[in-house]
Amino acid sequence: MGKNVTGVGRPRASGAAASSQNAREAVLEAAGELFTGAGYAATTTRAIAERAGLRQASLYYHFPSKEDILAALLAATVRPSLEVAGGLSGGDAPAAVRLWALAYADIRLLGGARYNLGALYLLPEIASPNLAPFRAEREQLKAVYRDLVAESGAHPDSVAVRSNLVFGLVESIAIIRRDDPVLDVEAHAVEGADGVLRVAGLPAPDATLRAAARALLPRS
Amino acid sequence: MGKNVTGVGRPRASGAAASSQNAREAVLEAAGELFTGAGYAATTTRAIAERAGLRQASLYYHFPSKEDILAALLAATVRPSLEVAGGLSGGDAPAAVRLWALAYADIRLLGGARYNLGALYLLPEIASPNLAPFRAEREQLKAVYRDLVAESGAHPDSVAVRSNLVFGLVESIAIIRRDDPVLDVEAHAVEGADGVLRVAGLPAPDATLRAAARALLPRS
Repeated sequence: MGKNVTGVGRPRASGAAASSQNAREAVLEAAGELFTGAGYAATTTRAIAERAGLRQASLYYHFPSKEDILAALLAATVRPSLEVAGGLSGGDAPAAVRLWALAYADIRLLGGARYNLGALYLLPEIASPNLAPFRAEREQLKAVYRDLVAESGAHPDSVAVRSNLVFGLVESIAIIRRDDPVLDVEAHAVEGADGVLRVAGLPAPDATLRAAARALLPRS
Repeated sequence: MGKNVTGVGRPRASGAAASSQNAREAVLEAAGELFTGAGYAATTTRAIAERAGLRQASLYYHFPSKEDILAALLAATVRPSLEVAGGLSGGDAPAAVRLWALAYADIRLLGGARYNLGALYLLPEIASPNLAPFRAEREQLKAVYRDLVAESGAHPDSVAVRSNLVFGLVESIAIIRRDDPVLDVEAHAVEGADGVLRVAGLPAPDATLRAAARALLPRS
């Protein structure tokens, strides 16, 4: 394929705007589009560089391999939620309120990101050594959910299964988005966080709990 | 790669056993292993034929293309649940009981299948014209969940979002399995079906409801 075959796309980084940071961002933007569109395996670093308007050498300067680009994209799907979780852990809000806040923020992140990067979680490449840091961060996030489910009063025998289902419900927004690309993200985040509390075995949340949970989150 | 490089595998179809039906099954078995292991894009029909112990011509006789193999594997992830749904629709059990039964059977199917084929739902190739029959059957199944959520008494405004989340929770067993390959499938099916009722906005199910729901299912 030649350059710019499709004729679609945004203005490319160029001139003064083509700083190192911008080049990195352009690579991530192009890769997010291609990985979730054409697919990870079908996308070459050459295609990413072309789409980003960069020479391949510039791409390799920032990302030595295609897996490094995948790792950076996937980090952006868990790191903000880990930061939310860190902010919630200091306060004295009830576990149910913190669980609602985390699930709401996490579904909004996964559901509202420009590209549906959660759809990449099931790639075989996730098992690669290069992806170990992402796997570790995702495990950390899952552990926070597990602790909140346990603290919410779930029976110890059911904590493991229920926290698997809670985490699965949150991440299933990737499948839901695939089916319906013009999703009402806010409605799914609210109903999804309600559902997380119910799956954890907690009483159905009310408007007071939701307002208390939203108040714990940074303004977005 | 030469033949039988890995040295692993089951006895191959051969001699009298190498009937047409057995050849078809051997292709599906080999493809299920390779698609969920190495990945769909990375797997060639040649590798599938080798793993199945067949000539490529035999493979093409049954499946003209790799997508046709994918279509057959994916059909097996929804068709049994559609049959369960059909069996449930004739009775007069309450919607909550039928919803529990369907979710329980569906999670058992997806969670207990030899290979984690639900992990293929997020492949870009799902959008291909060859996969239209699978997409239509999956949509039919989703419509059954939606009708049951509506019939369960969910507010009309919330039926669409809640049935998305219910279907997402059921299918998330593919992500959960990926994280934990030695999953307790039965525990996840029971807690998952409980969770489905809760996400739908129904009261937490009790042992009587679960027993009534199990009684609706064919013996497995």
